[in-house]
Amino acid sequence: MSDSGDSAQHSSQGNWGRWGAEDERGAANFISTDLVRDAAGLVRTGKVYSLSLPVQQQGVPVFPRRAPCLHFMTLDGGDYAAGLKRKAGYQSADDYISLPTHGTTHIDSLAHVWYDDRMYNGYLGSLVRSTGARKLGIDKLKHLVGRGVLLDLAGWKGLRHLPGGAVITVDDLKGCARHHGVELNPGDIILLRTGWQTVFREQGSERFFQSEPGLGLEAARFLGELGIAGVGSDNYGIEVVPTENDEPAPVHRMLIRDFGVYLIELLALDELAHGGCHEFLFVAAPLLITGGTGSPVNPLAIT
Amino acid sequence: MSDSGDSAQHSSQGNWGRWGAEDERGAANFISTDLVRDAAGLVRTGKVYSLSLPVQQQGVPVFPRRAPCLHFMTLDGGDYAAGLKRKAGYQSADDYISLPTHGTTHIDSLAHVWYDDRMYNGYLGSLVRSTGARKLGIDKLKHLVGRGVLLDLAGWKGLRHLPGGAVITVDDLKGCARHHGVELNPGDIILLRTGWQTVFREQGSERFFQSEPGLGLEAARFLGELGIAGVGSDNYGIEVVPTENDEPAPVHRMLIRDFGVYLIELLALDELAHGGCHEFLFVAAPLLITGGTGSPVNPLAIT
Amino acid sequence: MSDSGDSAQHSSQGNWGRWGAEDERGAANFISTDLVRDAAGLVRTGKVYSLSLPVQQQGVPVFPRRAPCLHFMTLDGGDYAAGLKRKAGYQSADDYISLPTHGTTHIDSLAHVWYDDRMYNGYLGSLVRSTGARKLGIDKLKHLVGRGVLLDLAGWKGLRHLPGGAVITVDDLKGCARHHGVELNPGDIILLRTGWQTVFREQGSERFFQSEPGLGLEAARFLGELGIAGVGSDNYGIEVVPTENDEPAPVHRMLIRDFGVYLIELLALDELAHGGCHEFLFVAAPLLITGGTGSPVNPLAIT
Amino acid sequence: MSDSGDSAQHSSQGNWGRWGAEDERGAANFISTDLVRDAAGLVRTGKVYSLSLPVQQQGVPVFPRRAPCLHFMTLDGGDYAAGLKRKAGYQSADDYISLPTHGTTHIDSLAHVWYDDRMYNGYLGSLVRSTGARKLGIDKLKHLVGRGVLLDLAGWKGLRHLPGGAVITVDDLKGCARHHGVELNPGDIILLRTGWQTVFREQGSERFFQSEPGLGLEAARFLGELGIAGVGSDNYGIEVVPTENDEPAPVHRMLIRDFGVYLIELLALDELAHGGCHEFLFVAAPLLITGGTGSPVNPLAIT
Repeated sequence: MSDSGDSAQHSSQGNWGRWGAEDERGAANFISTDLVRDAAGLVRTGKVYSLSLPVQQQGVPVFPRRAPCLHFMTLDGGDYAAGLKRKAGYQSADDYISLPTHGTTHIDSLAHVWYDDRMYNGYLGSLVRSTGARKLGIDKLKHLVGRGVLLDLAGWKGLRHLPGGAVITVDDLKGCARHHGVELNPGDIILLRTGWQTVFREQGSERFFQSEPGLGLEAARFLGELGIAGVGSDNYGIEVVPTENDEPAPVHRMLIRDFGVYLIELLALDELAHGGCHEFLFVAAPLLITGGTGSPVNPLAIT
Repeated sequence: MSDSGDSAQHSSQGNWGRWGAEDERGAANFISTDLVRDAAGLVRTGKVYSLSLPVQQQGVPVFPRRAPCLHFMTLDGGDYAAGLKRKAGYQSADDYISLPTHGTTHIDSLAHVWYDDRMYNGYLGSLVRSTGARKLGIDKLKHLVGRGVLLDLAGWKGLRHLPGGAVITVDDLKGCARHHGVELNPGDIILLRTGWQTVFREQGSERFFQSEPGLGLEAARFLGELGIAGVGSDNYGIEVVPTENDEPAPVHRMLIRDFGVYLIELLALDELAHGGCHEFLFVAAPLLITGGTGSPVNPLAIT
Repeated sequence: MSDSGDSAQHSSQGNWGRWGAEDERGAANFISTDLVRDAAGLVRTGKVYSLSLPVQQQGVPVFPRRAPCLHFMTLDGGDYAAGLKRKAGYQSADDYISLPTHGTTHIDSLAHVWYDDRMYNGYLGSLVRSTGARKLGIDKLKHLVGRGVLLDLAGWKGLRHLPGGAVITVDDLKGCARHHGVELNPGDIILLRTGWQTVFREQGSERFFQSEPGLGLEAARFLGELGIAGVGSDNYGIEVVPTENDEPAPVHRMLIRDFGVYLIELLALDELAHGGCHEFLFVAAPLLITGGTGSPVNPLAIT
Repeated sequence: MSDSGDSAQHSSQGNWGRWGAEDERGAANFISTDLVRDAAGLVRTGKVYSLSLPVQQQGVPVFPRRAPCLHFMTLDGGDYAAGLKRKAGYQSADDYISLPTHGTTHIDSLAHVWYDDRMYNGYLGSLVRSTGARKLGIDKLKHLVGRGVLLDLAGWKGLRHLPGGAVITVDDLKGCARHHGVELNPGDIILLRTGWQTVFREQGSERFFQSEPGLGLEAARFLGELGIAGVGSDNYGIEVVPTENDEPAPVHRMLIRDFGVYLIELLALDELAHGGCHEFLFVAAPLLITGGTGSPVNPLAIT
């Protein structure tokens, strides 16, 4: 079978081959229907939190080499005010958006990052072309629904935000979870609140993207080996910047490519943290962009 | 208060004023936290259905005057194959999308349709300008989470699809619900399966958009007065075309503008219907497009 | 005739009514076929200068509230390197651009700026709607071809660039023209070299858009009354910033709306200035964007 | 020098190596400054013809797999009618366009088509990546200015349009030129009027793109060897469809890749043909899209 990877050869790496040579959903497979049902059982208050930033051109963080999110009105109330005729009184407005898939709160597909020419499960990187990712596109995920766990690292440490460059360690994950009274389990989606968006709001884009507190390699491996399905954060790239080994995105490489774990970036976590609920039904439903390397998403915490 | 509507004057119409003169969420307010919790209690198997069409340029229905969804790769595996250097082995792919907010499976905001220059709750249509809807944008909804009910009208009638122009009546809604053994309750999100996408697949775009089976005015009023939060369908516009009064979109006007009900269009309902589950936790999380008249969305049925 | 302006009432203002109540080409009408022929007669060396900045996302000035120019490849050589099959050996590449019409070197249409609800020739501003400008769109210009005159103000004054806020006066225009040995005539397109792009290159975008040297109101009136067809510059907005009266864009209002003169902004004039030719055949051919308020353009000086 | 082609090896093919191994302008080099000056001397009446179709979403031909041209207003007169405040009376409108570079009247860059992994002058096709063409981009052309010759083949043959599939031969070129009393010379830009857009207007897009009359291989070679700089037409792809050898685009391959000739497609030639002028100053000024495979363009015939 020409397109699939040589999984036998790579089976020692993370989760390659764990769900068959044809698998394209990666660590989302950890979430059995039983786990989904259990996660639904966590809903106690019925309060729903949106974890997305607003999608707009100004006032939101966009990674420097990416373009801003654009929103165009193709019909609006101004047209009627200017004299546009109504058919039998009907009035409507319509619009159009243009944005990078990683340009606001988003989820990375497993086709977003790789190395040695092999993506997750051994698929060739060359399957990602101008027409999109023939394998591992975000459309293959369809949904990420399971138990969400909020680790409010900034809150736990009594800081408005972790400092840029601060490495989140295994001890941090465990200590913070213990503090909140929650366990970390296979299939979980772990949300890490660093408070880093404070820097964007108070010091601007340049400082925000210059560094960030985030997951270190040891903690990434711990989460990968634990069998989590996804990890999200309110920073822009999950992982600590500058990276521990000075190479680009080592945590992305390990989690996405080796473990098939989904990364959810630029989350809005303040309101959820303020609510004080640390385990909940987590729902992320990416747009089913055929062959997409990611999707903007409005993840929900149903508590 | 200049921007809000004159709710007293219009309070006889649908739900205007029901949640205060400042309300921008409309019938989503029917979904109390209790109802969300109850809806989470409907999760029995843990199976999750995505109700979205793929987001892609070809092979999917787009309303004639709208533009197709576009997907551009800004970095891909081909670049590495062509010789792009890797920093310390790192490889990645990135992309960009451009699409009408109503160009694939989507949810209408309450700023999408109105008449007499007044939108839901009395807000002036002139608040919707080139910079977006200052009131009632899709960002105000944040999420639509509650009890979903699937009424498989085509299946109930033993048809591959209802015929174009077929009016869904109150008796249809009640009869189909009885057939499935489900009740219709306030706060519900009702999904109507007409099978109409069969026409797109077999006869193409022109025939698909020429007419459609859909909700009639009587049934729309029934649902509005019942207090549903949203209604979705696998057709392109929820309501029957040609419309019963030959005017444009009378059901949109009534449900969106008078009742503040959310319409979810171009749903993919076949797999859910095949699954045979008729009540479930429904989750739609629109992109929080500031001032958007709608949003592409990947709604989920968690069963 | 409902759409046309009330030209009689406004005939005292600039060129309204000069070419009839239906006119949409404004001062381009000054360029008779005789003047075009004469301008072609200015071609002596056959050397052609492009006066456009590159169209690209990075490294070029874009007015802060506008979006950058984007360029997407929809098929490229990387795809073949990655294994894309060729039909009978055929290989090709294709692409797509997205940009503000005023986002790079561009020409303003007469629908770009107005006041008192009336555009050039009395057309109502309310004719410019979400579907574009029903009157005075850039498609009505079709072309701007005539005698071009380069006034190298920075060079004349021995400066790398005029300072931000420096007002170009009538005396400057006359003195610089005399220095170059050229006359300013009706129908001309006058190009003003300020050197201001030096500030963009050396000090960045923020400083570049904070102020600029440019045409003052007196000189604008002089040019309008002289009967020029267009005026271009290497700055971002032709006119001096801060403006002389602290109001937004008084020169735009006067030249575009009162006189129907075309403004061409963000020109690349260094190479032409270095060439030392001060009168030439000027050719600007905007994209015929139906109802556009402007168009990106690559103006040429054929010397 | 790694990026340039191995021109020695390919020198027998067309114009490779003719202007040095570093050349990226191809047959545009045939147009010496003397030829530009001579072409300017062809201007007799001063009448200027725009040869571009309108740039708009509907009613214009767009090749099926490409996207339509989109035009969005970001500020318009409707906004003021709806109550937008004016700063000191200032009113303006602004807009944004999105379009395929080959989606309306356009010029192909030399990076648009190739075979055997080598583009014009031996440059590797793999230099064309997601960030654009590192060699032979349309920005390298800058302008195409020279003697234009209109061959009105449909008019000469007394047809409203040549039939689909009709091959334009060397005899056609010579016979038509003789009929018009014009010569075909090195450095010329030859415009072929087939009348084919009649089919679009009368029979729609599907028939228009199913076939077309156009240049055959023999005539293409004749033009290439003659040393023309460019060839344009009112059809969508210059060359006859179905192609003579049933392979994709053999004329593109020969003219663009072997001879470095510029192709200009979807021209509007009816008005020029009606004017009866067959030699003129031709000016095409592409947008300087860095690394573009083409550019929308509004070519002018200055007669």
